[in-house]
Amino acid sequence: MSIYQDIKEQAYHANMQLPKLNLVLFTFGNVSAADREKRVFAIKPSGVPYDELTVEKMVIVNFEGQTVEGDLRPSSDTQTHAVLYKNWEDISGIVHTHSTYATAWAQAQTAIPVFGTTHADHLTVDIPCAPPMADEMIKGNYEYETGFQIINHFESLGLSHKEVEMILVGNHAPFTWGKTADKAVYNSAVLEAVAQMALLTRQINPLAPKLKDSLVEKHYERKHGACAYYGQE
Amino acid sequence: MSIYQDIKEQAYHANMQLPKLNLVLFTFGNVSAADREKRVFAIKPSGVPYDELTVEKMVIVNFEGQTVEGDLRPSSDTQTHAVLYKNWEDISGIVHTHSTYATAWAQAQTAIPVFGTTHADHLTVDIPCAPPMADEMIKGNYEYETGFQIINHFESLGLSHKEVEMILVGNHAPFTWGKTADKAVYNSAVLEAVAQMALLTRQINPLAPKLKDSLVEKHYERKHGACAYYGQE
Amino acid sequence: MSIYQDIKEQAYHANMQLPKLNLVLFTFGNVSAADREKRVFAIKPSGVPYDELTVEKMVIVNFEGQTVEGDLRPSSDTQTHAVLYKNWEDISGIVHTHSTYATAWAQAQTAIPVFGTTHADHLTVDIPCAPPMADEMIKGNYEYETGFQIINHFESLGLSHKEVEMILVGNHAPFTWGKTADKAVYNSAVLEAVAQMALLTRQINPLAPKLKDSLVEKHYERKHGACAYYGQE
Amino acid sequence: MSIYQDIKEQAYHANMQLPKLNLVLFTFGNVSAADREKRVFAIKPSGVPYDELTVEKMVIVNFEGQTVEGDLRPSSDTQTHAVLYKNWEDISGIVHTHSTYATAWAQAQTAIPVFGTTHADHLTVDIPCAPPMADEMIKGNYEYETGFQIINHFESLGLSHKEVEMILVGNHAPFTWGKTADKAVYNSAVLEAVAQMALLTRQINPLAPKLKDSLVEKHYERKHGACAYYGQE
Repeated sequence: MSIYQDIKEQAYHANMQLPKLNLVLFTFGNVSAADREKRVFAIKPSGVPYDELTVEKMVIVNFEGQTVEGDLRPSSDTQTHAVLYKNWEDISGIVHTHSTYATAWAQAQTAIPVFGTTHADHLTVDIPCAPPMADEMIKGNYEYETGFQIINHFESLGLSHKEVEMILVGNHAPFTWGKTADKAVYNSAVLEAVAQMALLTRQINPLAPKLKDSLVEKHYERKHGACAYYGQE
Repeated sequence: MSIYQDIKEQAYHANMQLPKLNLVLFTFGNVSAADREKRVFAIKPSGVPYDELTVEKMVIVNFEGQTVEGDLRPSSDTQTHAVLYKNWEDISGIVHTHSTYATAWAQAQTAIPVFGTTHADHLTVDIPCAPPMADEMIKGNYEYETGFQIINHFESLGLSHKEVEMILVGNHAPFTWGKTADKAVYNSAVLEAVAQMALLTRQINPLAPKLKDSLVEKHYERKHGACAYYGQE
Repeated sequence: MSIYQDIKEQAYHANMQLPKLNLVLFTFGNVSAADREKRVFAIKPSGVPYDELTVEKMVIVNFEGQTVEGDLRPSSDTQTHAVLYKNWEDISGIVHTHSTYATAWAQAQTAIPVFGTTHADHLTVDIPCAPPMADEMIKGNYEYETGFQIINHFESLGLSHKEVEMILVGNHAPFTWGKTADKAVYNSAVLEAVAQMALLTRQINPLAPKLKDSLVEKHYERKHGACAYYGQE
Repeated sequence: MSIYQDIKEQAYHANMQLPKLNLVLFTFGNVSAADREKRVFAIKPSGVPYDELTVEKMVIVNFEGQTVEGDLRPSSDTQTHAVLYKNWEDISGIVHTHSTYATAWAQAQTAIPVFGTTHADHLTVDIPCAPPMADEMIKGNYEYETGFQIINHFESLGLSHKEVEMILVGNHAPFTWGKTADKAVYNSAVLEAVAQMALLTRQINPLAPKLKDSLVEKHYERKHGACAYYGQE
């Protein structure tokens, strides 16, 4: 049995959630699960249909982006995952999908405004949308640079990746992350729901105001604050 | 067996309807069922996934909002339920969801116009949307105040909670109620359908007129009036 | 066994198609199947959930709208069905639903323009939308008058109920019919699909032109004309 | 056993994918699979419901459009398939559907702009929309001429059918193709997803810019270029 069995199982089960949650068509998505001590992550092999996935097919890659174990080629987005794991200390799961509504906002190159408490229960700011990359970055190591595009956009906005666990990459699609692969998948599903509601909100009322600060803080605090009272202890 | 077994079963079965009716993502919703004589209600525990719910996990809370039985923490919206049960004599079931279309109208801070008979079969007025709460109420006992925000908005519009069994809370999401938990769930599903149709109606015809009074009355009367002839006796 | 067993089975099976085709929420729809020789039809009982329906529960009503057999109250829309069967010689099935997109067009009081061949394969004109009824008709025998509202609108437009097997009733919802109950259900599903596509078409291109006459005729002829070559003989 | 057993099985299995992928209502679609050496293709019989399809019911037609084997009448779109197989050397599968979003763009007579990488992963240009046919073509051999309408539009735009494996036919609906019937079905599902995302993108941002050239090329190259690194070898 692989010494990476644990993260291979985590990655497998998290990947299999994507089609159940209607977040992927065919193979348009991938999840990884990291072992931060060993500095490696397990990720979906590239282009393999979900109903042919097994725990054994997961590929182990280190934080430098080099394959460590596995016969299959890892997801084409592997370098983006590696960059994020290497630079952001506190995450152990990453998800990339082309889910319908989140991708539409990314294509529209528009951050998703915080219109309601469904959004504010998870993050207190607009869901950021990184601009498309500069041409020289695209022509270079594209997926590697995508990781930095995400990190740089967070820095330019002064955002913490511990508080905001999702981003849209302009013209492309969403990435989410979390302390576990399961949490990252959860975030992808929340993002898709919030993205749909935000579009509908503006269709009903093009002048819909954003959530006021007091309400943003209240909903976030009750789930994530020092005195959180959502869920069980 | 609990002396509250009956309402725990009602609450359990009604909660389990929410995912089947596509009204919730993850744990974004809750149903309670009240025993008005004992002045308590059974409600979903906070943050527990639907596929892990059991009758035994339902929490019993009294109309003052205090937990009476149960090992788990009750839904974070429990105080809102308590306020409504305490102040509105005739209801024995309450539902809160973040269903997609109803939530979009809530986020747009817009009442849902009565555009057709699907709506008028259930209520004769626009589905009300309470404004977001004042900052001092948010900073206080937020969920408790949400209950009063709902009651106050009904009073300001001169609405009866016996005739209008649903409301949108601005920036937040819908609440529905009824004589039983099942009826409250039914109302949540009707609200979501009516909310979707109303948005589509305005997309087809931005100047779509509301249903005229004679038709509003006719459809409501045939289901709810003294001479109702819908359904079986 | 009832002497109406045949139409009771037809009506039962056709009614059970509605939830499978996602055309109804709860009990918001009904199908009838007629025996034109006996001048009666079998129709869904009012307010009975689809998963509790049985062949035996179907109610037999004559073309004058009087119940002939059955313990349950027939659908509240029974008088509309009766009027259409009595006045239109060639139909043996009628469906009423509140399907989402067709109902939105009805609420918008707008006929559905013939934008493409999906529509033209079934009818060569816009799908008509009858105006809301006059107040005196509403206050009278409402469902009975709904039947005449449909018939009168067809007459005013010079339409044949043999060629156009569907209508929207303004502010209300669609009715469809056909030579059998199954065909009427088929028409309801086609109407819903065409209604959704037409809305999307105008969202993409508000100035989208209607299908030109030569194409309308071609598609209709290949399915319905003297030299039809769609389907098996 | 038929000497065409292989393509009959391919066509059967590919046709059965259409309802699973939500690309067809009733019988509104068809797939064919070609044997280029024998210059024939297997295609769905006309008007037969998907749940009554069998391998044996597939009809064999030659590239001139004449039925070679089979008791049933072939799909009414058979001549369009024949023209494409005869004129385009490298395709062995063709799909026609009336899928909702792709058909809406066809009805809007609008090419689908390349807004993001989901699109660019598959083709580097807008998804073309052929104009409605001239009246004399419609009145003639309509389905035969539809094939030439597609071919002519590709020629007028300077497109290669090897690089762009899909088209919208104005007022009508999409056609897709590929090296196999399965690939053509895959393309139909991708087209439908891209069509939905493009509509949503413009609803969020009516001025959404198209994907810039550097990104278009990068995404297409990584899947299809000489150094492709998507999927397994």
